[in-house]
Amino acid sequence: MPSARPAALPALEVALDEGAAAGDSFLGRTQNSSLPRLFGGLVAAQALAAAGLTVGADRPVHSVHAYFLRPGTALRSVRYEVSRVRDSRSFSTRLVTGLQDGRPVLHLSADFHRPEDGLEHQKAPPSAPDPDEIDSGLPLPVAERVEQEWPEWELKMVAADLLDPTRLGHTQVWLRLRESLPDDPGAHACALLYASDMTLLSTLVRAHGKPAITHGMTLASLDHAMWFHRPFRADEWLLYDQESPTAAGGRGLTVGRIHDLVGRHVATVAQEGLLRS
Amino acid sequence: MPSARPAALPALEVALDEGAAAGDSFLGRTQNSSLPRLFGGLVAAQALAAAGLTVGADRPVHSVHAYFLRPGTALRSVRYEVSRVRDSRSFSTRLVTGLQDGRPVLHLSADFHRPEDGLEHQKAPPSAPDPDEIDSGLPLPVAERVEQEWPEWELKMVAADLLDPTRLGHTQVWLRLRESLPDDPGAHACALLYASDMTLLSTLVRAHGKPAITHGMTLASLDHAMWFHRPFRADEWLLYDQESPTAAGGRGLTVGRIHDLVGRHVATVAQEGLLRS
Repeated sequence: MPSARPAALPALEVALDEGAAAGDSFLGRTQNSSLPRLFGGLVAAQALAAAGLTVGADRPVHSVHAYFLRPGTALRSVRYEVSRVRDSRSFSTRLVTGLQDGRPVLHLSADFHRPEDGLEHQKAPPSAPDPDEIDSGLPLPVAERVEQEWPEWELKMVAADLLDPTRLGHTQVWLRLRESLPDDPGAHACALLYASDMTLLSTLVRAHGKPAITHGMTLASLDHAMWFHRPFRADEWLLYDQESPTAAGGRGLTVGRIHDLVGRHVATVAQEGLLRS
Repeated sequence: MPSARPAALPALEVALDEGAAAGDSFLGRTQNSSLPRLFGGLVAAQALAAAGLTVGADRPVHSVHAYFLRPGTALRSVRYEVSRVRDSRSFSTRLVTGLQDGRPVLHLSADFHRPEDGLEHQKAPPSAPDPDEIDSGLPLPVAERVEQEWPEWELKMVAADLLDPTRLGHTQVWLRLRESLPDDPGAHACALLYASDMTLLSTLVRAHGKPAITHGMTLASLDHAMWFHRPFRADEWLLYDQESPTAAGGRGLTVGRIHDLVGRHVATVAQEGLLRS
């Protein structure tokens, strides 16, 4: 029963479209935002929520790959059509098309994996002060945008980094949901996918020594990939360490690693952004 | 005219399926391999070649995201069905399904971008000895596999790295095609996508201090993402620097950066592998 699964966040709620001709069609909740443009993290997270409603709860998501195809509007809801690509013994794959006014705004593939044991390793976590030791540290325009568009999230930027010119294009942010989520791992994955799109483009812009929000630049997320390595909670502090290795020809890549408070590597993110000056 | 475009490599040739009911259906050349299992890099590269045949040559590929859905056989060809998802002023997106015996073995999305100018940056390239200064350096089983399955490629592993226990899970390989390719950027992109899948799983295994080819382990590529940042030639030396940041629950991620001989960052790769002991 899809409707029995807890929602990740009110903003990420999707519901079976009872009026749809075909089976796996879902409608996302309209974004509660004062900004007219659909936030990429929202449409990706709603698409993942829709995909998750077609997979058993015993198979958590382990990766997503998405392309943003057109800018959407925050004023109308998005319809998600889910295709059941694979259900094997251990894995389930879903392909989701997000549509607005009948035109695709997003393609997202997601893969789900029945938990199993296996070899384990991880690199040393990035070093950063504990979130309790720092103030918000957000530059004012970023703080305003967070308050306006992502009020469910508490963000603390590691301030020292903002002042270090050798670390241009490197951003560290502690983030967590202000309110607690149910224990469903899918809800936490959707929430973190949403949050993972909040600061990637500003990391890319800062690689060029510019403020996080720069007038006269065109910025857009082109794609978004995310791998979930270990269980985590989005309502507890997570360190999002982001770095842009390169940009050229109007596009730049940013890679992010997400660790929890005890240093477990819980997720990795990669996104290419459009960057026109 | 699709057939007018030069092939990347004989192994990567795809041709319009004249007998197909729908438009964009292509057949891949059967793999010339003594191994029965379809190589992931081959099916991904053929899928990209098929997608490229539906896009103008003035829009080079800039990224691909793929899921490997089922093991395929090298003994029969793969059919590629291409869906034209988007053709905007600057970007074209294609979704490709690779089918064997009517069952999907691969889903690949690819995005193509009309060249434009833009801001540019890159991190310092990894340090490694020049390829002329080192011998092949490949461990014997890897050398045998390269000779057997990838004879078109010349590979030189940076040998010092193999002996450094602090760099477990870090692999550096110089690679190039033995024969030259036409100047078409799409041919070089297909070739490098193919090559980028050759050494990722062994990098993942070596993160656990095991030889690159270990008996009794199940290894498979689950997905594959690749971003092309700058023009390059696959028939000139490229340094493929690979590192596995983490593995858990039977899956491990490997991230690779590819630089040319003068240190330009030309591509980035990310792949999650299945790793069962």
